[in-house]
Amino acid sequence: MNYDKIFDQAIERLHAEGRYRVFIDILRNKGAFPNARCFAGHNGPKPITVWCSNDYLAMGQHPKVIAAMEEALHNVGAGSGGTRNIGGNTHYHIELERELADLHGKDGALLFTSGYVSNDATLSTLAKILPGCIIFSDELNHASMIAGIRNSGCDKQVWRHNDVAHLEELLAAADPSVPKLIAFESVYSMDGDVAPIHEICDLADKYNALTYIDEVHAVGMYGPRGGGITDRDEAAHRITIIEGTLGKAFGVMGGYIAADNKIIDVIRSYAPGFIFTTSLSPVLVAGVLASVKHLKASSAERDGQQAAAATLKALFADAGLPVMPSTTHIVPLMVGDPVKAKKISDILLAEYGVYVQPINFPTVPRGTERLRFTPGPSHSEEMMRELTAALVEIWERLDMELLEAA
Amino acid sequence: MNYDKIFDQAIERLHAEGRYRVFIDILRNKGAFPNARCFAGHNGPKPITVWCSNDYLAMGQHPKVIAAMEEALHNVGAGSGGTRNIGGNTHYHIELERELADLHGKDGALLFTSGYVSNDATLSTLAKILPGCIIFSDELNHASMIAGIRNSGCDKQVWRHNDVAHLEELLAAADPSVPKLIAFESVYSMDGDVAPIHEICDLADKYNALTYIDEVHAVGMYGPRGGGITDRDEAAHRITIIEGTLGKAFGVMGGYIAADNKIIDVIRSYAPGFIFTTSLSPVLVAGVLASVKHLKASSAERDGQQAAAATLKALFADAGLPVMPSTTHIVPLMVGDPVKAKKISDILLAEYGVYVQPINFPTVPRGTERLRFTPGPSHSEEMMRELTAALVEIWERLDMELLEAA
Ligand SMILES: Cc1ncc(COP(=O)(O)O)c(C=O)c1O
Ligand SMILES: Cc1ncc(COP(=O)(O)O)c(C=O)c1O
Repeated sequence: MNYDKIFDQAIERLHAEGRYRVFIDILRNKGAFPNARCFAGHNGPKPITVWCSNDYLAMGQHPKVIAAMEEALHNVGAGSGGTRNIGGNTHYHIELERELADLHGKDGALLFTSGYVSNDATLSTLAKILPGCIIFSDELNHASMIAGIRNSGCDKQVWRHNDVAHLEELLAAADPSVPKLIAFESVYSMDGDVAPIHEICDLADKYNALTYIDEVHAVGMYGPRGGGITDRDEAAHRITIIEGTLGKAFGVMGGYIAADNKIIDVIRSYAPGFIFTTSLSPVLVAGVLASVKHLKASSAERDGQQAAAATLKALFADAGLPVMPSTTHIVPLMVGDPVKAKKISDILLAEYGVYVQPINFPTVPRGTERLRFTPGPSHSEEMMRELTAALVEIWERLDMELLEAA
Repeated sequence: MNYDKIFDQAIERLHAEGRYRVFIDILRNKGAFPNARCFAGHNGPKPITVWCSNDYLAMGQHPKVIAAMEEALHNVGAGSGGTRNIGGNTHYHIELERELADLHGKDGALLFTSGYVSNDATLSTLAKILPGCIIFSDELNHASMIAGIRNSGCDKQVWRHNDVAHLEELLAAADPSVPKLIAFESVYSMDGDVAPIHEICDLADKYNALTYIDEVHAVGMYGPRGGGITDRDEAAHRITIIEGTLGKAFGVMGGYIAADNKIIDVIRSYAPGFIFTTSLSPVLVAGVLASVKHLKASSAERDGQQAAAATLKALFADAGLPVMPSTTHIVPLMVGDPVKAKKISDILLAEYGVYVQPINFPTVPRGTERLRFTPGPSHSEEMMRELTAALVEIWERLDMELLEAA
């Protein structure tokens, strides 16, 4: 048994496929987002513009968020010091759960240390509580949902992405007497398309299934109060469990679910991933509380983000760059090759001070490697024009095809 | 299919066993630990003393930690804004990984959002990378290790707690040609006993097995630099992977592993629980960095904690309270019944302003319900005398047996 050899081979496979990942060493400048500094190489930090952050609305740098975190830091200290059950349940946690429940028009909410953990812990526990449960999972569901479904050990049926006819076929073929759960996302983060929520809920009603929606790339950004696509489409009351993150549009870190009290109580009481871990730092919780409250009342950030995305999509299309058909704030450019995607990203960083990470397998299917831009309210039109020009120059340099201008 | 009924029954089972959990709503007072405020009931916050925090050394309130977090908050903002691969890799993360690698005398380290996730992600990924791997798991291993082992889908063999003879029996019976991993903890947090690390490593050498140690309840607290029991016992170089938390003695939040670079690279590249989640907030990372650096150089906190634990154990024993035979900073009192454990805890909080959470199933086996005290450098001898007197009074009130004074 030569362990080293096995580990070497595992790493070698990544190099061979051109998808070995090198993390870029960056520091953001608070108050100056999307400007940041990059430590790549040994020439010390150089200024860059960040185009791939999921701090979509720059709330991670909002003065209200910073002030709330500073206050909590001075009032209660750095960490919670315990699990939710043993010493780690602070008044901040309780308040934030109330706020998130209200955001989604649900009875209750439950905090987790991340969106990943909220998906993994909730799905795996729910399916264990429901004997014989079948989970119907959209084929593009996020790795954290896939982990939760796999870890539940229950029967899983995968429906073609956003294809409600296929979903109905599978539901109709299943035993009517067993518990069913339909699991999907609202905004798919690598393509920028949106699920047909009401149609899925119609099927859930017809076949008596529970529904679970991941709104990680929508909370804060859609709906009059930032409750996500279920808020925008007035569908929240039709969904059994809404899941979200505190680390993207809300700008901090953590995850949660919102649902009726009974379900919250079951997950709270049975999910190991909730029970057996130090609770979120109250400093983070205080920051999120400020962020959620702000975005409930203010639409300026959402409007700015939508305007920026529309502008960037138009500029890319006019320049003949292969922008993918997103209907949301996400602006992906198809490259279709992991080595080229990395090369473009490297040139952008080294020569243009533009930071956009190449997206490769396993984050997206092989052969659909891409660059994924997330313009927000702080990206100016001038930045976008410079970015477009840079991309066109690189596309030509690498002999890649530009499309007819749209 | 009546979903509500199933959920009701799940909750009813907890009430019937007397282990339905009610979270105590508390706020610590920075700078005054173990003093805190409690919101239980509606009479507003009242002052309490916390006896069950895992912020063992009060580092969550250390001025250096607070200052470092405040600085990071103002320099870079609240959240990281992305996964480690996509925009969320800050210079703080890289520095902390270096610091933790150094703490354990390893090549490298890898951060996770929690200790739970570090165990789950590392164990499940490692066992998938090693074809046919058998994991040998101590029967008292933490829920997060159990989750990782189960989620790996690999063969698991459970050895009796700290029983190296039994471990050897199982190792000797296994196919010599398959990969093997021995997984255990250093300090078992609910009993306070310690694993025989060198003996386990001898067996690992003899049977060519990898070793994985959870030092969650030891890092910061044992060894000349706070590297844990493997530091104190000079065993770190014999262990393949050391896992720790940033949320207990280091006082903040997060988790990590330390190992040689090859293994770090494999986990970094393959573990979904590491890859697909927003990285730790740089504010937390900055705080931990200060905490780890401080505890590497200062033993005052460790000495204070050991002295406090010795005093409290002696006071409990002298009063005839059933203190369990811990050899560490953890001071558990055996109650043996979930309803009584909760009752004692309720009286302590309501009448004495003492907060200690009852520990029940599934955190400990049924029939071994207990109160678990974690005295630290900030608990004074006077507080301990008051606590002991309160416990004696309650023990008598509830007609529970007091032992002969030790
Ligand atoms: C769709 C989706 N769900 C869940 C997550 C996990 O959320 P978090 O980053 O808070 O762990 C992510 C990304 O990180 C995601 O893209
Ligand atoms: C032995 C052990 N390992 C791991 C963990 C998880 O660490 P964290 O709280 O950082 O998730 C805990 C407790 O929470 C624990 O007691």
